[in-house]
Amino acid sequence: MKAEIITIGDEILIGQIVDTNSAWMGQQLNPIGVDIVQISSISDQVEHIIKAINEARGRADIILITGGLGPTKDDVTKKTLAKYFDSEMAMDPIALEHVTQIFAKRNLKMIDINEAQALLPVKCKPLYNPVGTAPGMWFEENEQVVVSMPGVPYEMKKMMTEKVIPMLLERYTFPVIHHKNFLTSGIGESFLSKRIAHLEDSLPPHIKLAYLPNYSTVRLRFSARGQDAKAMESELEEIGHRLKEIIPEYLISDEDIRIQEVIGRILQAKKLKIGTAESCTGGYMAHLITSVAGSSAYFMGSVVSYSNEVKMQELGVQESTLTSYGAVSKETVLEMAEGLRKKLGLDYAIASSGIAGPGGGTETKPVGTVWLAVAGPKESIAKDYLLYGERLQIIERSAMLGLDLLRKAIEAQDI
Amino acid sequence: MKAEIITIGDEILIGQIVDTNSAWMGQQLNPIGVDIVQISSISDQVEHIIKAINEARGRADIILITGGLGPTKDDVTKKTLAKYFDSEMAMDPIALEHVTQIFAKRNLKMIDINEAQALLPVKCKPLYNPVGTAPGMWFEENEQVVVSMPGVPYEMKKMMTEKVIPMLLERYTFPVIHHKNFLTSGIGESFLSKRIAHLEDSLPPHIKLAYLPNYSTVRLRFSARGQDAKAMESELEEIGHRLKEIIPEYLISDEDIRIQEVIGRILQAKKLKIGTAESCTGGYMAHLITSVAGSSAYFMGSVVSYSNEVKMQELGVQESTLTSYGAVSKETVLEMAEGLRKKLGLDYAIASSGIAGPGGGTETKPVGTVWLAVAGPKESIAKDYLLYGERLQIIERSAMLGLDLLRKAIEAQDI
Repeated sequence: MKAEIITIGDEILIGQIVDTNSAWMGQQLNPIGVDIVQISSISDQVEHIIKAINEARGRADIILITGGLGPTKDDVTKKTLAKYFDSEMAMDPIALEHVTQIFAKRNLKMIDINEAQALLPVKCKPLYNPVGTAPGMWFEENEQVVVSMPGVPYEMKKMMTEKVIPMLLERYTFPVIHHKNFLTSGIGESFLSKRIAHLEDSLPPHIKLAYLPNYSTVRLRFSARGQDAKAMESELEEIGHRLKEIIPEYLISDEDIRIQEVIGRILQAKKLKIGTAESCTGGYMAHLITSVAGSSAYFMGSVVSYSNEVKMQELGVQESTLTSYGAVSKETVLEMAEGLRKKLGLDYAIASSGIAGPGGGTETKPVGTVWLAVAGPKESIAKDYLLYGERLQIIERSAMLGLDLLRKAIEAQDI
Repeated sequence: MKAEIITIGDEILIGQIVDTNSAWMGQQLNPIGVDIVQISSISDQVEHIIKAINEARGRADIILITGGLGPTKDDVTKKTLAKYFDSEMAMDPIALEHVTQIFAKRNLKMIDINEAQALLPVKCKPLYNPVGTAPGMWFEENEQVVVSMPGVPYEMKKMMTEKVIPMLLERYTFPVIHHKNFLTSGIGESFLSKRIAHLEDSLPPHIKLAYLPNYSTVRLRFSARGQDAKAMESELEEIGHRLKEIIPEYLISDEDIRIQEVIGRILQAKKLKIGTAESCTGGYMAHLITSVAGSSAYFMGSVVSYSNEVKMQELGVQESTLTSYGAVSKETVLEMAEGLRKKLGLDYAIASSGIAGPGGGTETKPVGTVWLAVAGPKESIAKDYLLYGERLQIIERSAMLGLDLLRKAIEAQDI
């Protein structure tokens, strides 16, 4: 089953707001077997709306429209739909009751443009909106469904979940789709694709593979489509077994999670405590770790040591180390990690020191030079990297590589 | 001048990623006089790409395509464009040199699919990519321009800023547009629009206002379009004077910069040293501060004290304070800020403690309860907030509010 999303409103086109509604709708519809074939963001203009609906009906069975239902003059969606479906408008008593109640609740006086929100094309099935003043509309014509919903995310989500999805499930018969995600770390997209080329080439036509890279990690998403849920599940499971054979050193999860969640689970299972000693990453490693709910169970804290004084005073880096080797060096980053580990009584500590740029690079240590270290119960390891990109990318990339180094260190030390 | 954006890639359609590229492109193009008439997100399929380009060329002069340029098999954009423009492919030596250098820099061996990224349709002007392996392409036909760029946000942004926008400015004649940005902090969009309603209503038709909110800050962008550059400049300057009268307490910059840059300039001018003591923000305040180039001049370091032990041991928070008032309290957050200020010898220290959720909330301290404090040379201040949203939003919002509290504290103490 194919669907197209049309979002109406200039605020998206001028970049005033980011369209997060469409991604959310895709996430809800994909699992039930609806493929979004296109998302179109267009302006509040009658001709443009009609053209977009016509184009969409050439591609999809289900057209989902959001936005353009406000009470003000620039919102023309409802009257455009009435015109498009050649429908009279009539006051809908239930919708009117809804609007009246909402105004009463908010202690506001209703004016005529508010009352007009309950005017609906007679050819639509109204989708009553319990949390806003604009009802949605469901039209059917030539086996196609055209749905119009408010653009306010909260109102749209409630209407999708409680009305539109149940009505679609009743209206159509859907194929079964299964997804399986695998997270890899420490290998680039192109090398990964070469390593798994044989697996990819041998996929049956009903299973698709997508590569979703994010800095040092690449997510592999396999999607199987068919009727036999059980058979597809075991096909996807078999792919997992094969991946474990082909890329055991890079495969870090067979779930749809981020690297910081993978690490969080390992730490919780092994009851380990960690912390970070950060120079060039400036707190971003701590941020990644603490972005995971429940991280307080294993993350104790960090020292961000941007200045050399803080490196010495708080992490116990020797002045002679800084003088002899510099702040961006194997020696310094190891002392940072070991210093923090000891100070906070941690099992593992990750440290970073590098040159994020744009200034500060030298011939021997150009911008992008980064040292990372992990101090653990058995040993400490350090590794250097030469990263490219702008300041923020170097910071983010370093932080993700730091998490991966921790993961490897825990695996190697097996404590 | 009209433009259409086409983003290619299933990851947007299935809702795996939110398309933030298009909003950014709209923000960049609007100011030079390019109106985005439609944004279309489509899948990586030859027929679909061709259809989308044809539809777009019926509406716009400039077609900007992002995504689908990766080295793997699921990326078909380049060969589709070659087919569409009926062009041979040839190895581009400069692009090949770029790819080779990137691999050499990363100390990686190049494989054939990487080399193939330098294969380009001979009919395009190559847009060399200094930060990635996929070059962009610029095609011209029948007075229309079709540009293809990588989907990786920072590669696309660099290519847009350094190549595409300058080339568009050379290729077409645009009206004269002047912009003036003002950054506000600490007031929501709707309240702000109410406060400046009179100013907004009195704007002449050739000056447009856009609200660009980002957590606790809202950027006001005034765009004047016309022929008389000098007159427009003085009109925009006059708007600045009026804003300073209407919202002096919220207006923090009349430049197009972020709050962490505003603060960086204040700190550098006043030669002040700062640091952060972070609980719920988990290092994100330090990250925001250190995302600014040159921040090592005023940022010394941070202690992220996720556990109570670290709060006591590293920041000198009293055990009795934690027992009597809890970690999320005015008393604790003040001791954190004062502890760090003293320990690192700072002029100002910002501290945070709150409940980012989803767990950990109680009846009296629900998820979203956040205390922020700033300790300064004259006094310390603390403030509580009740923030909404998911974990990551609460973290990011808290961090930006912390920066704003620092700004206010420096202003109030005038040191």
